[in-house]
Amino acid sequence: MTTTTTSKAYIDLGNDLPGIRGLMAFRPETAQHLNALAEVLLRDDDNTLSRGERELIATYVSSLNDCFFCQNVHGALAGHYLGWSMAEIDAVKANREYPELTEKMKALLSIAGSVQISGKAVTEAQVITAKEQGATDREIHDTVLIAAAFCMFNRYVDGLGTWAPQDRQVYIERAPRRAAEGYVNTDLNK
Amino acid sequence: MTTTTTSKAYIDLGNDLPGIRGLMAFRPETAQHLNALAEVLLRDDDNTLSRGERELIATYVSSLNDCFFCQNVHGALAGHYLGWSMAEIDAVKANREYPELTEKMKALLSIAGSVQISGKAVTEAQVITAKEQGATDREIHDTVLIAAAFCMFNRYVDGLGTWAPQDRQVYIERAPRRAAEGYVNTDLNK
Repeated sequence: MTTTTTSKAYIDLGNDLPGIRGLMAFRPETAQHLNALAEVLLRDDDNTLSRGERELIATYVSSLNDCFFCQNVHGALAGHYLGWSMAEIDAVKANREYPELTEKMKALLSIAGSVQISGKAVTEAQVITAKEQGATDREIHDTVLIAAAFCMFNRYVDGLGTWAPQDRQVYIERAPRRAAEGYVNTDLNK
Repeated sequence: MTTTTTSKAYIDLGNDLPGIRGLMAFRPETAQHLNALAEVLLRDDDNTLSRGERELIATYVSSLNDCFFCQNVHGALAGHYLGWSMAEIDAVKANREYPELTEKMKALLSIAGSVQISGKAVTEAQVITAKEQGATDREIHDTVLIAAAFCMFNRYVDGLGTWAPQDRQVYIERAPRRAAEGYVNTDLNK
């Protein structure tokens, strides 16, 4: 059995919730818009990228930013949607040319990887390659915005020194409920 | 007279609007939440950081990310609220220990500068220093989230190759109307 230990964030959140959940309970006025953004970007069905593909982009960027909480929350969700094990998700984090990925996803992950470095690191050649692999303008837009948004979420979580469960099984077990309830109006944020 | 030249973004936005405005017109479903986040973080009156101070944090991070559009939109707004010239705003960008800043603002800009690098770059010592200079937990929270949010906005604007007016006077002249109308329900986004 793994024992989860909690530690104080850099500010007094008035709760013991991990990761972004503690921050969101502390400041619900900003949380509502962060959650609404995550819902439309990652979960809305009006999108030609699957939920699993979008969560995989979020996971990849969170891994590049070394954010343990986010890469495991969203990695477990990506695995849930795609039917992949955490080992397969880890393989994508280690190699965005992972053979099980479509050529379009490889091109989109390449763009996401550049966004993680800087907006200016994205090249028009990367975008052209993604289009050649069948990516639409909106898919490219959403890839850039998901990657950019996780450069925000990751910094928010780690910049305030929040704690995260170290047992990755916790994230895997929670993913189905998160997938069902979504990011808005969920008691996961309570 | 400066002539503003437009260039194509990496995707077809279906409009000629500059910077984030073109992206928001292309994808209003995400824009509404991005604008609502900016409104509560930067403009809401229920905050002990002034609008000018919050816009200055946004400007400083946008400068570190080398985002021309964002650092000028928000730099002009910071100047408008604080009654400072663009030269004074530029002086803060070049030196976050600028003598006209309060000690609390210097400490908060130090935290924002670390967030720009990585969430993990923020140290507890920086947070303790900010508290010693009178910063509240919520002011520290908002500083981290503003800095993190501009790591998103800057990447969104530059990662999709948007254009920006090069004449900085354009931003200065627009700031009073932006300040009056805010980020939500404004025809500046049209």
